[in-house]
Amino acid sequence: MSVLIVGSVAVDDVENCHGKVTRVLGGAASFSSVAAARYDHTELVGIVGDDFPGQHVELFKQQGVGTQALEVKPGKTFHWGGRYHDDLVHRDTLFTKLGVFEDWMPVIPEALRGIEVVFLANIHPLLQLHVLEQMQQVRLVGCDTMNLWINTAREALDRVIEKSDILLVNDEEARMLTGEISLNKAAKTLRARGPRIVIIKRGEHGASVHGEGRLFCVPAYPLDEVIDPTGAGDTFAGALMGYLARGNAFEFEPVCRGVLQGTVLASFSVEDFSLDRLTKVTNEEIGQRLEELSQMVRC
Amino acid sequence: MSVLIVGSVAVDDVENCHGKVTRVLGGAASFSSVAAARYDHTELVGIVGDDFPGQHVELFKQQGVGTQALEVKPGKTFHWGGRYHDDLVHRDTLFTKLGVFEDWMPVIPEALRGIEVVFLANIHPLLQLHVLEQMQQVRLVGCDTMNLWINTAREALDRVIEKSDILLVNDEEARMLTGEISLNKAAKTLRARGPRIVIIKRGEHGASVHGEGRLFCVPAYPLDEVIDPTGAGDTFAGALMGYLARGNAFEFEPVCRGVLQGTVLASFSVEDFSLDRLTKVTNEEIGQRLEELSQMVRC
Repeated sequence: MSVLIVGSVAVDDVENCHGKVTRVLGGAASFSSVAAARYDHTELVGIVGDDFPGQHVELFKQQGVGTQALEVKPGKTFHWGGRYHDDLVHRDTLFTKLGVFEDWMPVIPEALRGIEVVFLANIHPLLQLHVLEQMQQVRLVGCDTMNLWINTAREALDRVIEKSDILLVNDEEARMLTGEISLNKAAKTLRARGPRIVIIKRGEHGASVHGEGRLFCVPAYPLDEVIDPTGAGDTFAGALMGYLARGNAFEFEPVCRGVLQGTVLASFSVEDFSLDRLTKVTNEEIGQRLEELSQMVRC
Repeated sequence: MSVLIVGSVAVDDVENCHGKVTRVLGGAASFSSVAAARYDHTELVGIVGDDFPGQHVELFKQQGVGTQALEVKPGKTFHWGGRYHDDLVHRDTLFTKLGVFEDWMPVIPEALRGIEVVFLANIHPLLQLHVLEQMQQVRLVGCDTMNLWINTAREALDRVIEKSDILLVNDEEARMLTGEISLNKAAKTLRARGPRIVIIKRGEHGASVHGEGRLFCVPAYPLDEVIDPTGAGDTFAGALMGYLARGNAFEFEPVCRGVLQGTVLASFSVEDFSLDRLTKVTNEEIGQRLEELSQMVRC
């Protein structure tokens, strides 16, 4: 099968206790696509300006990410700048220059409208809806979002959630969306709004998968040092969606196995800035961490 | 075997979104002892005033907690008042009336000095040290603490940590004690200071057990509603220590199995105020949640 991924493609300036990088490849869809492409053919739907470095496009191609739906338009690429606090969890956005992203309305090329697995990476929910409407035979929709859209585009977001099979949120977003303190209860409430499966990302504490009467918990892969957490959630989701597409099975168990893959890929992603580590990781390295993860829950 | 547990025995006033209770049984050692006594004979070392309700002493006895080292002194019982925020995690201490606790120096009765498993529940580290010095053939020392002692009695606390086999801390305390961001690295740093095993309590996200080259992670048991989290960590630790004493085996694997027991007992403890739920839970109920927990990490 194939995966179609829509979301932001950006250049990022990131500052934290480990250093500062400028104009590196970033954006939710960049991380997700590269992660997904490790498992199955992936098509990236996004937009960049004519300032977008050709080497980034080459990187996508080398990683197996199809770029026929990556629009290049005269103007500036979406440029995000952020500074992390010393906990490497909280961060301040220093600037958000939307550039060509500002008035973008994604058009899916005819040849890609038959793709059956779609991942709506973090982006305005109206754009997520617009993409979904163009797809002709969707069998699995995964959806990610962020606090910004919960606060500013709630109605559209609720429609996206309704149309999603798998919803990915972090613990804070789960509480914002439901008003529930208990994450378990929040997941039930979210499932009642549409998604068959809700995945709650718990950062350094792992993730939980909530299905009908089923719960699966996975710890985060333990790292002595995180260099840059940017894109961890996007990597996690991309790996999951790519894994599901490859296996062509979307039940609870394959989703859990995909979450293990996502957990491991995210653990590599945060070991360097941008996609620098993610694009270099070998299958052997992934296999080793998967084995370690499975040992960590046995006693 | 037996377990000796030293720590605070208190009456608590607790306020949260579910209600308000006054002068209910509280204190770290109360929760820990009742949890431990479910697994093995437990002796409680503590002090109360002559205002301490006789029914609380009766409750200890009914639960199998030995009270020969529970000193009763003219004066007031330690009285703590706290109000939880709506997240049921953060709380403000409204008052702390130490009463007879203020100048207490625990004396272990001769008959109890041969107990081999000791749990130093949360209490001033100088008192923890004083208890340890009186024990004659200790084989296993577990230690809990809190941010207050990290900030105000660090030197004494470091000595307790050095003498402990198992150190229990929450994620915030692990970071305070080590200055490390990574909990995995913090656990390594803490192990280098003495304890063979470090257990990091992650609240609603579970716990991790860190031994030599080994890591075990357990999720929290998922609850739709927490009524009162007071004493959850104490219950967790008490169950672990009681379980280890009963099995008379203190290696990594039994500690992990004890952590599963602690996780389940803590999940019951928070389902009501004070020890109301903990004292009523049946072995069948515990067994069921243990089974559910083991299912939650399989895929």
